[in-house]
Amino acid sequence: MTAVARAPLADAATTPLERVQAAVAREMGEVNRLILERLQSEVPLIPELARHLIAAGGKRVRPMLTVLATQLCGYSGSRHIGLAACVEFIHTATLLHDDVVDDSDLRRGRSTANAVWGNKAPVLVGDFLFSRAFQLMVADGNLRILEILSDASAVIAEGEVAQLVIQNDTSTAEQAYLHVIASKTAALFRAAAQIGPVIAGRPEAEERAMATYGQSLGVAFQLVDDALDYGAGDGALDKNVGDDFREGKVTLPVILAFARGSEEERAFWRRTIEQVEQTPEDLDRAIALMRRHGTLEETFARARAEGQRARDQLRLFPPSPARDALDDLVELCIERAR
Amino acid sequence: MTAVARAPLADAATTPLERVQAAVAREMGEVNRLILERLQSEVPLIPELARHLIAAGGKRVRPMLTVLATQLCGYSGSRHIGLAACVEFIHTATLLHDDVVDDSDLRRGRSTANAVWGNKAPVLVGDFLFSRAFQLMVADGNLRILEILSDASAVIAEGEVAQLVIQNDTSTAEQAYLHVIASKTAALFRAAAQIGPVIAGRPEAEERAMATYGQSLGVAFQLVDDALDYGAGDGALDKNVGDDFREGKVTLPVILAFARGSEEERAFWRRTIEQVEQTPEDLDRAIALMRRHGTLEETFARARAEGQRARDQLRLFPPSPARDALDDLVELCIERAR
Repeated sequence: MTAVARAPLADAATTPLERVQAAVAREMGEVNRLILERLQSEVPLIPELARHLIAAGGKRVRPMLTVLATQLCGYSGSRHIGLAACVEFIHTATLLHDDVVDDSDLRRGRSTANAVWGNKAPVLVGDFLFSRAFQLMVADGNLRILEILSDASAVIAEGEVAQLVIQNDTSTAEQAYLHVIASKTAALFRAAAQIGPVIAGRPEAEERAMATYGQSLGVAFQLVDDALDYGAGDGALDKNVGDDFREGKVTLPVILAFARGSEEERAFWRRTIEQVEQTPEDLDRAIALMRRHGTLEETFARARAEGQRARDQLRLFPPSPARDALDDLVELCIERAR
Repeated sequence: MTAVARAPLADAATTPLERVQAAVAREMGEVNRLILERLQSEVPLIPELARHLIAAGGKRVRPMLTVLATQLCGYSGSRHIGLAACVEFIHTATLLHDDVVDDSDLRRGRSTANAVWGNKAPVLVGDFLFSRAFQLMVADGNLRILEILSDASAVIAEGEVAQLVIQNDTSTAEQAYLHVIASKTAALFRAAAQIGPVIAGRPEAEERAMATYGQSLGVAFQLVDDALDYGAGDGALDKNVGDDFREGKVTLPVILAFARGSEEERAFWRRTIEQVEQTPEDLDRAIALMRRHGTLEETFARARAEGQRARDQLRLFPPSPARDALDDLVELCIERAR
């Protein structure tokens, strides 16, 4: 039924996004309904604040990943709906906690949800979403999946703290940065993908393949995000160019530009990223330096290599519409806004 | 063995604190070791920040409650050690997230862990502790306990958000305030106590009794906390008098003083609590008004009534050293610093 519905779309005229969306449309409808239902609370501020984020929410890549991985493994039940919602709740909680600003950020004129609600509401609503996520996995009741998701949560939190430690340090080694994004971003992609084979009771080799697929896709996703933040896209961006720069966030494009830069250029990076002393022209200069040293292109090239690694994992599985969609999902994550 | 070790202490010359500590000493040693072990992380900032809180940590009432409830139910295994640590991790995560300050708080000159680390570190380390808590319960593997603890987490988060909503509103109804403390404080006491009968496979009536014991003890604990914040103790306080007042926090002593106050007094409360416009003399005036209207004594009286309700639950169980210690724990929580 779903395969029939998907078939007419699988021609060359459609985009990867359209093909992926067609493959998950029905199930994502159920996931979205469950998310809205589980957002409810006696305390109206909770759905108010969370809906702001979840309704605005991007492409829902992570729950899509759970849905597609489940399809790939031939699972025919409905447990993956709750787990996909759980994955999105964990992601949204992380976003809310990322929004917490320090006094220094406020001085830099950054404006987020906190501008309206202060710092405390996003923290506490984030905690609520985390708890809802755990309730959803406990309701599922599979201890292996509980282990995968609680381990992922701990790795994400460790990655977020590690990122805080390297923040504003332009001499951050590439390796430290890659470890941070493997934790803070890729761990949830990995868990989301791994749920598929686990829920379907597939052999360990398939679980490993999907874990690697998710991990590599997550790294690729974050690398692309970091490049787009310096305007590497075509202008139709889903995030504001310069956010990372204004926060003094150390990402791969910066690390490479610092490593390849002259002494005078390094002084520029130290001033703008370490001391976060910036003039309105500095962002353009930063982008110009990145283009000179090809660091945005290199960031994309690494994302593509990770994407290829993700795709390679799919060969373990027989051809299917879900496999095609997972292939499209890689392209979608890498080529968005290009 | 433990009973023999405890017996010599159970005479009239000892204090409730000494008797409770003697009853849990060996097991709390194991809980503390596990807490320190599970605090470890590749990211040194995590144990650094968390240890600051956990090592300084108060009386560890919540994990003690799990240990005593387990003893009460005749459980002889070791699973409760991990669950008691889990309960303390949830509590510490909540404390860290409570520390998050808004810009306005900073202006009021409040100083917390954030003064050193900014707002983000306590949030992210709190998330790590939450995740560790979930890993500990998943490792235990009992779905009923997972349900109790994940439900408690959601209730706590809802209670924290609800508290934010009533903050600075002097006309907050008593009922709304009681609902907040039942959620944000008592839910974890309830879960901590409930673990005992569940882990020991005791009948539902005992589970209900211990849930009620924990709930009432938690409400009593918070009521006493709120009274002590206005110097209702004997001076040997474990928290700073006036913290709640300076934050404009609406607690029972304030709600009752507002309700019983003259128009001029209400104007005082509106200025100091709603607008948080305070002079150095205002705290003394607030305490004087509370004494005039007997609101601190009434807060203690309610705490004692809740404590009695907790004690009544213990009658379901045959006499035992653990039952005596749970009785002492009520006294300990209510009479601390008096």
